[in-house]
Amino acid sequence: MKTYYECFPCFMKQALRTLKHFTTGDSKHDEMIIRDILHVLGDMDFTMSPPEMTREIFDIVEKYYGKTGDVYFHEKRSSNKYILDMYSELEEFIVKSEDHFDTAMRLAITGNIIDFGANSEFLNEQIHKEIDNALKYQDLDSGLLKGEIDKAKNILYIGDNAGEIVFDKLFIEQLQKEKITYTVRGRHVLNDALMGDAKMVGMTEVVNVISSGSSFPGTVLKDCSKEFVEKFNEADLIIAKGQGNYETLSDVNKNIIFLLRIKCPVVARDIGHKVGGFYAGRKN
Amino acid sequence: MKTYYECFPCFMKQALRTLKHFTTGDSKHDEMIIRDILHVLGDMDFTMSPPEMTREIFDIVEKYYGKTGDVYFHEKRSSNKYILDMYSELEEFIVKSEDHFDTAMRLAITGNIIDFGANSEFLNEQIHKEIDNALKYQDLDSGLLKGEIDKAKNILYIGDNAGEIVFDKLFIEQLQKEKITYTVRGRHVLNDALMGDAKMVGMTEVVNVISSGSSFPGTVLKDCSKEFVEKFNEADLIIAKGQGNYETLSDVNKNIIFLLRIKCPVVARDIGHKVGGFYAGRKN
Repeated sequence: MKTYYECFPCFMKQALRTLKHFTTGDSKHDEMIIRDILHVLGDMDFTMSPPEMTREIFDIVEKYYGKTGDVYFHEKRSSNKYILDMYSELEEFIVKSEDHFDTAMRLAITGNIIDFGANSEFLNEQIHKEIDNALKYQDLDSGLLKGEIDKAKNILYIGDNAGEIVFDKLFIEQLQKEKITYTVRGRHVLNDALMGDAKMVGMTEVVNVISSGSSFPGTVLKDCSKEFVEKFNEADLIIAKGQGNYETLSDVNKNIIFLLRIKCPVVARDIGHKVGGFYAGRKN
Repeated sequence: MKTYYECFPCFMKQALRTLKHFTTGDSKHDEMIIRDILHVLGDMDFTMSPPEMTREIFDIVEKYYGKTGDVYFHEKRSSNKYILDMYSELEEFIVKSEDHFDTAMRLAITGNIIDFGANSEFLNEQIHKEIDNALKYQDLDSGLLKGEIDKAKNILYIGDNAGEIVFDKLFIEQLQKEKITYTVRGRHVLNDALMGDAKMVGMTEVVNVISSGSSFPGTVLKDCSKEFVEKFNEADLIIAKGQGNYETLSDVNKNIIFLLRIKCPVVARDIGHKVGGFYAGRKN
């Protein structure tokens, strides 16, 4: 999906959010960076996908502050821990449901709300409300994904954020795990899950986990590692979580099922579904 | 109030909203303008107030499209008409209430939701919900304003948007009208009310109406007409509606009571009240 003009306010929001993680409180320095981000945005290639734009902005902020560490590290650890603490409660939802696959898939999509990129405040108390919404959501059918998973021999499941990865693990526990390879990002960007998160939440004990080799908050194939691209090409089914993966893979000709919470009008329009909706399907 | 970094996503939103009013559908031309806006924002004087920044962005869009007419004209007329059609219903709220002044003031603040600058969608059906909220809102006391109006001999009431001006008229009908001068903007900008709106809704039949002589979506005194500044200086009480007037007058040393719905975290922080709150008071 290309970048639309409506994405620019969001780029600014993401830049400011990232700035807050980096700032030393020197407002003149912060001002210089804001100015630079605005000029860089003004000169950017607008045919890039939103996650590519986001990465460039993130790079400017990192470069100016001279920090190369993972500034979202503690937030990501907290998200993982919070959802891990709910693990048995979430398992109960699945065990007690009539359709374990459907419930687990709905929970996996719910996990996608844990996205500091699109929502500034990750409010713990909202999670239960979101789970309730997801379990009741009418316009969501797990049949397509179930059929594709049953048919597939080699599934690549591309993860998204920390915290959310725990929901992914719950879902994957319901599937034929030997068919599945799970993917995390190759380098820190926003709150996207890395190999350390996969280890922390025990995903590595459940399925084979690989890195995309890329630091984009999505899956930009030309930037991914050779190993990842091979896995991607070999797979007969890709399950891609979240808006970042949708925005970067929606134009790729491959058997991809997207699982996401639709958080903005641009993606809603592109996918043909409403903002706030839960989605499990192909690009229309 | 100075511009904060958090204002930049909103500037982009306003620019895009304005662009939608001007665009001829030539996406290359639109792209050039978006790029120019980003560069202009990157070079702007960040000590300006948000309405001054908004005006500059509006100017770029007007300049590039070569249109100098009032692109919000029809929206403004519709807003006025919609609220005029509710006039007797709104009067009923006041007549049937225990405290006419308090109810009329609450309605006047409610009118401030009709702001295309801060809310992209002006949904008619929301008005009743907002009225209900305003009438029940706990943390709002009309005592200060009532006392100041009773004491004052010469009141300058600075309006804000079209549609909202009808609510202002309802409020002013409850006051000693001979003490009051009402102000509209001097030139079109966003959906701000002009003299034509004051005439359309009959405000000119109720009180003396003057123009600020300025085209900023707020009250930037150095840009206002000599006539307006004299009126401003002579007044012993200023009633200023909406965020734009707050943002441009909050640092002016004068007896000013602000009436507004708080629509963003920046103003909320500056005023010391919560987002979504109704406010009638001085700058704290």
